[in-house]
Amino acid sequence: MGQKFQETTLSTNSIFRGNIIELQIDDVSLPNGKTSTREIVKHPGAVAIMAITENKKIIMVEQYRKPLEKSILEIPAGKLEPGEQPAITAKRELEEETGYTTDQLEYVTSFYTSPGFSDELMYLYFTDQLAPVTESSQLDEDEFVEVKHISLAEADSLIQQQEIHDAKTILALSYLKERFSK
Amino acid sequence: MGQKFQETTLSTNSIFRGNIIELQIDDVSLPNGKTSTREIVKHPGAVAIMAITENKKIIMVEQYRKPLEKSILEIPAGKLEPGEQPAITAKRELEEETGYTTDQLEYVTSFYTSPGFSDELMYLYFTDQLAPVTESSQLDEDEFVEVKHISLAEADSLIQQQEIHDAKTILALSYLKERFSK
Repeated sequence: MGQKFQETTLSTNSIFRGNIIELQIDDVSLPNGKTSTREIVKHPGAVAIMAITENKKIIMVEQYRKPLEKSILEIPAGKLEPGEQPAITAKRELEEETGYTTDQLEYVTSFYTSPGFSDELMYLYFTDQLAPVTESSQLDEDEFVEVKHISLAEADSLIQQQEIHDAKTILALSYLKERFSK
Repeated sequence: MGQKFQETTLSTNSIFRGNIIELQIDDVSLPNGKTSTREIVKHPGAVAIMAITENKKIIMVEQYRKPLEKSILEIPAGKLEPGEQPAITAKRELEEETGYTTDQLEYVTSFYTSPGFSDELMYLYFTDQLAPVTESSQLDEDEFVEVKHISLAEADSLIQQQEIHDAKTILALSYLKERFSK
C-alpha cells in the first residue's frame, strides 16, 4: 500500500523490553502537521500450523492463556526466535507441541494480528504429511498443552459455540474448509 | 474450555498505562509448581465492521499503521471506549471512518486477536443497509483514512498479493465469500 498518511517519528521512548515483547512510545508528526503519540508493542513474529492427520483430523492444542485467564483451543503456534526463518520455527513448534514432525510444510499466507498497536506478523503453514517424532522433543519449560484431534465438522460447531475463539484458528479453519471442498 | 493448566497469579506489576493499552507483568505459579513470568498487554477490546454497499462493494479504509511503518488496507475498525457496548462502537466507527451509517448492524462473531500476549477481543459486525451520514461525523483528531470500495473479487486478488495483510480483514472476506455464495 505504501506510505499514504505517513507519520514521521519525532522521538522513540523504550518503556519495556521483555522476553517476548517490547513496548515503545513514539511521538509522531501527523499528515496535518500536528503531533500525537503511538503506543507500540514490538513482537518478533510468530507461526501457526495447520496439521492434518491421515484421517483428516485437525491437530489442535488446548492451553492456558494468562492474558485471558482461561484455556482456549488453538492450532499449534509459537513465536520466532531472533533471526529464525519462520519455516524452521513452524517445524519446531509442531514437534514440541504435537509430537509430530514433517518434511513437507507448505507456506500459505501471513497476516498482521493486530496492526493498531502491534507489529506481530504471523506466518501460516499447512501440512498433511505427518510422522511421529522419534527423538523426544520438549515443550518450553513453562508451556503446558493438551493435544486434540478435531474434525472440520466438530471445529465448525466449536466456532458456532465460541469454544474456538481465536483469530488465527478461525482463519485457518476457513482456509481448510475451502481447500477440502475442492 | 475452562481452566485446564491454570496459572495462578503470584503478583502483578503494572509497567505502563497508556491511552490504548496497559502493560503488566505477572509472576505465575505453573501446573508443575514452578514459577514463570507472563508479559500481558491489556486492551479495551475492539470492533470491526463488514459494510456492503448497494452494488455489493466492501467498504475498506487505507490508513497508516505506525507499528508497521506503512499504510495498509483494512475493514473499518476501532477500539471500545470504557464501558461501551460493542454495537455502539461499531456504529460510531462506521460513521467516523466511512461517512455511512446504519440502523441494522448484525453481530457475526468475536475472536481474540493475539491471545499469547494480549486480551484484545474483537467483535465483528455486518451490514448491507447503509445510508450517508447527514450530520458531519468526525474522525479522531489523530486519525487519517482514505475510504475505498472494493469488490469481493478485487479483495481476493489483493489477499493473493498480500496487499490485504491483516487478520480481521482476511477473516471478514472469508466470511463474506461464504455468505454471498449461498
